[in-house]
Amino acid sequence: MSGHDAEPGAYDPPQPRSAADRLLSVLDAFDFDHPALTLTEISRRADLPLPTAHRVVAALARWGALERDGSGAYHIGLRLWEVATLAPRGLGLRQAALPFLEDLYETTHENVQLAVRDGFEVLFIERIFGQSAVGVRTRVGGRWPLHATGVGLALLAHADRAVVDEVCGSLQASYTPYTITDPVHLRRVLADVRATGCAVSDRQITDDAVSVAAPVFGPHGDVVAAVSVVAPVRTTQPHALVPVVRLAARGISRALGRPQR
Amino acid sequence: MSGHDAEPGAYDPPQPRSAADRLLSVLDAFDFDHPALTLTEISRRADLPLPTAHRVVAALARWGALERDGSGAYHIGLRLWEVATLAPRGLGLRQAALPFLEDLYETTHENVQLAVRDGFEVLFIERIFGQSAVGVRTRVGGRWPLHATGVGLALLAHADRAVVDEVCGSLQASYTPYTITDPVHLRRVLADVRATGCAVSDRQITDDAVSVAAPVFGPHGDVVAAVSVVAPVRTTQPHALVPVVRLAARGISRALGRPQR
Repeated sequence: MSGHDAEPGAYDPPQPRSAADRLLSVLDAFDFDHPALTLTEISRRADLPLPTAHRVVAALARWGALERDGSGAYHIGLRLWEVATLAPRGLGLRQAALPFLEDLYETTHENVQLAVRDGFEVLFIERIFGQSAVGVRTRVGGRWPLHATGVGLALLAHADRAVVDEVCGSLQASYTPYTITDPVHLRRVLADVRATGCAVSDRQITDDAVSVAAPVFGPHGDVVAAVSVVAPVRTTQPHALVPVVRLAARGISRALGRPQR
Repeated sequence: MSGHDAEPGAYDPPQPRSAADRLLSVLDAFDFDHPALTLTEISRRADLPLPTAHRVVAALARWGALERDGSGAYHIGLRLWEVATLAPRGLGLRQAALPFLEDLYETTHENVQLAVRDGFEVLFIERIFGQSAVGVRTRVGGRWPLHATGVGLALLAHADRAVVDEVCGSLQASYTPYTITDPVHLRRVLADVRATGCAVSDRQITDDAVSVAAPVFGPHGDVVAAVSVVAPVRTTQPHALVPVVRLAARGISRALGRPQR
């Protein structure tokens, strides 16, 4: 996890944790592999004494940030989800994009995805799929490296040079023999994305799927998101998907207020 | 807002607020009508002295629960949204339901909605719509009274008697001349929903839309959600929508692990 440290304070040497930090460390204890935790597990994963964990968990549960199930385990509560729907780069963005994503899904019947860049990672905001779509490893709320996904390449191609340099200097994650691991290759791919307005990520995460992605522009002309279609590599001509993906990205950009040329 | 007070402590007399409560009151300051707030506004809405608000906001921003935009205003951050995707009754439920909601949307091309009951209100988890759908006032993360919505009627018809009694005893919200305001009428409607397996909410929130809803059952046979189609009243025969809505609800129930009869 990276990209949450925009405030200078994040780089200060470790200090005694504040009450706020203790509460947030309880939320940090939950992740995709640990969606339900007992009080003891929370105490251990948040590195808090059991009585402290108990007090913080009680406050979070009272407010609705945590809910307790029949077995006594805690999980993230509906009230926190409700507040989180206010995140402009979460459901706010999704709401503007949805009609275009629906059209794209109906046209292709493949996985349709919407993602944003958070630091050096892609965060998936939306994934639309039917009962027949190819299996993919991404999920809403999931993170992936920028260089290995179609949406990531579309976002990285329009990121600041410092971000590109950092990614090129640390190409570690590799999932298939097709994953880009060479910085020179990556820079060439990014130049291509800028020239064509579209990114193709071929079998980089699973060896049976190809992703075609295009950038979404905000009202000030900056790239704020990317949209993609992920389809089975056996039956897909990526170039056939380019026009519909670009059209969807253009529609979303317009809905976000980008002046049309 | 109600239904967040399942813990006995919520009914204790007011006490000096703990650090956890102060932090959560900052999150409470944000709502649909106030998605972006300055520090001064947060301080006022959370009822915290400015220095305290500043300290709490800094901790939340460092962690990523709040983000600051170009104008200096704070809004809910992507990291909070990411943690909230772990809520089982939020995106977890949505993930299981989505393929069936997509099919329902493709069949009807109307608004397709998924909702859960939280206390005495409906909370909308998902709304799928295209560019041609009738305008509706619901949104993902939005709350409405149980008696005034199709999904609410489907959920209320299967709720505990105490919940039904409470709703029948406090029928205040009314949006159109068609909104149910008579408890005897409401009880008759709920009996009907149980008998037919489907709820029809006719022009209760806007006078141009009708909603057809069906309950979704969890693995233990209890009603955990409801699915609906909202369509223009002028061109819709509600009874024509009943089979597809029930089919979708049945598919979602099966995906959630309900034993099929």
